Amino acid sequence: MKGTVGELGEFGLIRELTSRLTTTPAVRLGPGDDAAVVAAPDRRVVASTDVLLEGRHFRRDWSTAYDVGRKAAAQNLADIAAMGAVPTAVLLALVVPAELPATWPVELMDGIRDECQVAGAAVVGGDVVRGETITVSITALGDLRNHEPVTRSGAQPGDVVAVTGWLGWSAAGLAVLSRGFRSPRAFVEAHRRPEPPYHAGPAAASLGATSMTDVSDGLIADLGHIAESSKVRIDLRTAAIDVPTQMSDIGQAVGVDPLQWVLTGGEDHAIVATFPPDVKLPARWRVIGEVVSPPPCPR
Amino acid sequence: MKGTVGELGEFGLIRELTSRLTTTPAVRLGPGDDAAVVAAPDRRVVASTDVLLEGRHFRRDWSTAYDVGRKAAAQNLADIAAMGAVPTAVLLALVVPAELPATWPVELMDGIRDECQVAGAAVVGGDVVRGETITVSITALGDLRNHEPVTRSGAQPGDVVAVTGWLGWSAAGLAVLSRGFRSPRAFVEAHRRPEPPYHAGPAAASLGATSMTDVSDGLIADLGHIAESSKVRIDLRTAAIDVPTQMSDIGQAVGVDPLQWVLTGGEDHAIVATFPPDVKLPARWRVIGEVVSPPPCPR
Repeated sequence: MKGTVGELGEFGLIRELTSRLTTTPAVRLGPGDDAAVVAAPDRRVVASTDVLLEGRHFRRDWSTAYDVGRKAAAQNLADIAAMGAVPTAVLLALVVPAELPATWPVELMDGIRDECQVAGAAVVGGDVVRGETITVSITALGDLRNHEPVTRSGAQPGDVVAVTGWLGWSAAGLAVLSRGFRSPRAFVEAHRRPEPPYHAGPAAASLGATSMTDVSDGLIADLGHIAESSKVRIDLRTAAIDVPTQMSDIGQAVGVDPLQWVLTGGEDHAIVATFPPDVKLPARWRVIGEVVSPPPCPR
Repeated sequence: MKGTVGELGEFGLIRELTSRLTTTPAVRLGPGDDAAVVAAPDRRVVASTDVLLEGRHFRRDWSTAYDVGRKAAAQNLADIAAMGAVPTAVLLALVVPAELPATWPVELMDGIRDECQVAGAAVVGGDVVRGETITVSITALGDLRNHEPVTRSGAQPGDVVAVTGWLGWSAAGLAVLSRGFRSPRAFVEAHRRPEPPYHAGPAAASLGATSMTDVSDGLIADLGHIAESSKVRIDLRTAAIDVPTQMSDIGQAVGVDPLQWVLTGGEDHAIVATFPPDVKLPARWRVIGEVVSPPPCPR
């Protein structure tokens, strides 16, 4: 495809974007009408929205449009999974400059579509307008499948704290990119395209998770959200958290303690949850701490 | 409230915005967690998203933040109603410059909240980030209450075409504002704050509407969408459409045929639908045409 967004025109661009979409049985009515219709078998729908701005959340010289799409979708779909829900659908509100090559939003859409497929969801609608700054605003929907939503506020003293997914990989990749390098690839790729453990969210709900969130602000910050919402303290055993050798090597090369990436890096969208102490966790969950009572004299 | 968005900070702003919200029984979990949970008793959810950009869709010297909020919400809620659904919830993705007075997003949120209340919905979540251009991206959700969604594609030859709500008022108001005037107030107000007939959407679905849309691009354009999707022609009887005397007067004053505003002005979010010929329409619907067979040799 040739030309710019302005040359293709908004209707032409919308036609091009929607022509590339795939569907699922949950999509009862896809793009093209006043609104989409999506199955919500649980009789409740889980919904979350996030905005990514060029320059602030992504850079076109560091990430392809496809990767930005994967990441934007992943970020929202992870929020749905972290409630214990199965992602079903995504809506895209996109602002694009007229002079942007039309391939950019098209590849962005391919990325969103492919990430949705990984999570079992589909793009069902959106809006595209011209403006100065590329702005990718995504709303994701999901279904709870008869589980109660797992919020941040249910952690109980005695619960174990466990995490699944990647920690610190995106932050290490960003550190590498910020210094002008493009390798090690594994970390750079992790920064460009996170891989949230979508299935782990609903699985944790089935296992009786008492609280859950995805790691978007960093492990310590996000556990802080759980502690605050649940009115508990969380004892994190940092020794229980593996730092891969390759990450230690990068840390040494750039003069950063890699544990900092693991504890404060947010964009991998790992899932952290609390469980009753007698839970039998699947292999890919690592116990990293426990929930303890709040201090006797709360401030 | 004093200071700018930058001085208040993103967390401070989010706290201020969410503190002003109201709720409804459909809101099972409101803002503050990874995602919101909204009732979807029909087992399907209707969803639509739209973006408004400063300079393109609104001007801060023509509309207050409150009015922008009302309008942004109305635009999305009308899309839900035009599917025959009852609006339930709204999510807001907001981009605001750091130097913007913090009162602006706060009043915007008040407008969104109040328009949601008119439609029976509530704000359940969102995201706020700093950026250069004010960008208001809204996703609205709704419930079909056991009716099939009324799409644009079900119009049948022989159906009557009927409309309810205002037509041309917003366009007349814009014409007045564009010429530097601030009156007549009724039209300027209609431009700043449309009043979509939300209840008419689900009511039309109950009455057996065969196709429906809200008038967002203009009556002729939106009926064109129905005709194209339904593969029919629509005979519009313009004589059946009232042009209020006051609108004729403005038209004369600014040298515009007011029928142009009525036929091509889009932002009032009236609802237009097709019904079987024997339907008994409530008083506020006006029959303005009929559906006829497509031409024998479609191009």
